[in-house]
Amino acid sequence: MAEGQIDFWFTMGSTYSYLSVMRLADVESFHGVRFRWRPFHLLLILQEMNHVPFADKPMKTRYMWRDIERRAAMYGLPVKLPAPYPVKQSVTANLVAIVGMREGWGADFVRAAYRRWMQNGEETGSEPNVSSSLRDIGQEPGRIIALANTSAANDALLSETDAARHLGIFGSPTFAVGQELFWGDDRLGDAISWLKYGAVRRT
Amino acid sequence: MAEGQIDFWFTMGSTYSYLSVMRLADVESFHGVRFRWRPFHLLLILQEMNHVPFADKPMKTRYMWRDIERRAAMYGLPVKLPAPYPVKQSVTANLVAIVGMREGWGADFVRAAYRRWMQNGEETGSEPNVSSSLRDIGQEPGRIIALANTSAANDALLSETDAARHLGIFGSPTFAVGQELFWGDDRLGDAISWLKYGAVRRT
Repeated sequence: MAEGQIDFWFTMGSTYSYLSVMRLADVESFHGVRFRWRPFHLLLILQEMNHVPFADKPMKTRYMWRDIERRAAMYGLPVKLPAPYPVKQSVTANLVAIVGMREGWGADFVRAAYRRWMQNGEETGSEPNVSSSLRDIGQEPGRIIALANTSAANDALLSETDAARHLGIFGSPTFAVGQELFWGDDRLGDAISWLKYGAVRRT
Repeated sequence: MAEGQIDFWFTMGSTYSYLSVMRLADVESFHGVRFRWRPFHLLLILQEMNHVPFADKPMKTRYMWRDIERRAAMYGLPVKLPAPYPVKQSVTANLVAIVGMREGWGADFVRAAYRRWMQNGEETGSEPNVSSSLRDIGQEPGRIIALANTSAANDALLSETDAARHLGIFGSPTFAVGQELFWGDDRLGDAISWLKYGAVRRT
């Protein structure tokens, strides 16, 4: 068992992040590592880079869904694909997530919202996803959405986005072990290996 | 041991393909699969997509080299990074590779050229890489470069590029099991699993 912590940077418009969101709790207990969930607003960084990962690339998008479908099956995760993409209001989902991280129910919200997105076709950040996901986890939508609309929540999200940019993050999910970045659900094993051994080893 | 064949689609301007090029022979004997090496000219497809994977994205490029460095260490492959990138004449390297695939020394050439690129800093497709890599494997550069400059070689490369485009390939390396595509060195395990079980399984 390794002591230590991995920062899990994610944005709620990211499709591939579903694969991580849904398995981190199991990975945590299996490997004895802790994840710190850090929502940020990747879209700002992508716009600065003038980078559109998928939405204007139909062949790559088709591949993405197939790849997610095969890997979700490997992890035993249900999917109904393609899910709505790109999502129009990832910022709202990220704001609610950041409120949730402060109040202690953030990871539960993120899982509920991703379940609705990837299993039911309700995109994150829009209704009914936001209110339903909050109700799924026993939170009152009115109170939370009001908090998500405060400048305090907005400042917190921008501050985390600045921290992500400063680390050199350009995609979601990204796992950070100190300054060392591992981009993609498929690099989670590399991140755990780095935390344990200071090197990427075959598992 | 699985019976069957995986098409290994690659272009010689691709950095990540180094990780596959150098280990496919071992993977082949370990897993009892066969790879058919299929050079194609990815740059044409990327230009049609208006897609620049790395060269105009410094943060992503920096990450790419670090990721390759860590994974090369995992595979026990030497590297001297960053290597020259993007390479200016990947088309020449691809043409020589396609001549080599027909004559039977293609994979040896590709390995020699990648070794020189990623270990010595000589970019593929330009001199001294092309002639030196040919000499490394006992081929006479003058004869081969003349063959690579024929319209027959050019037609063969365009025809393979058409086949790749038709399959929906947009990156290198891509492993194809029939119509099923697996993009990236990090999906080689998924491709082998698909060939053996018709599903992506945990290894």
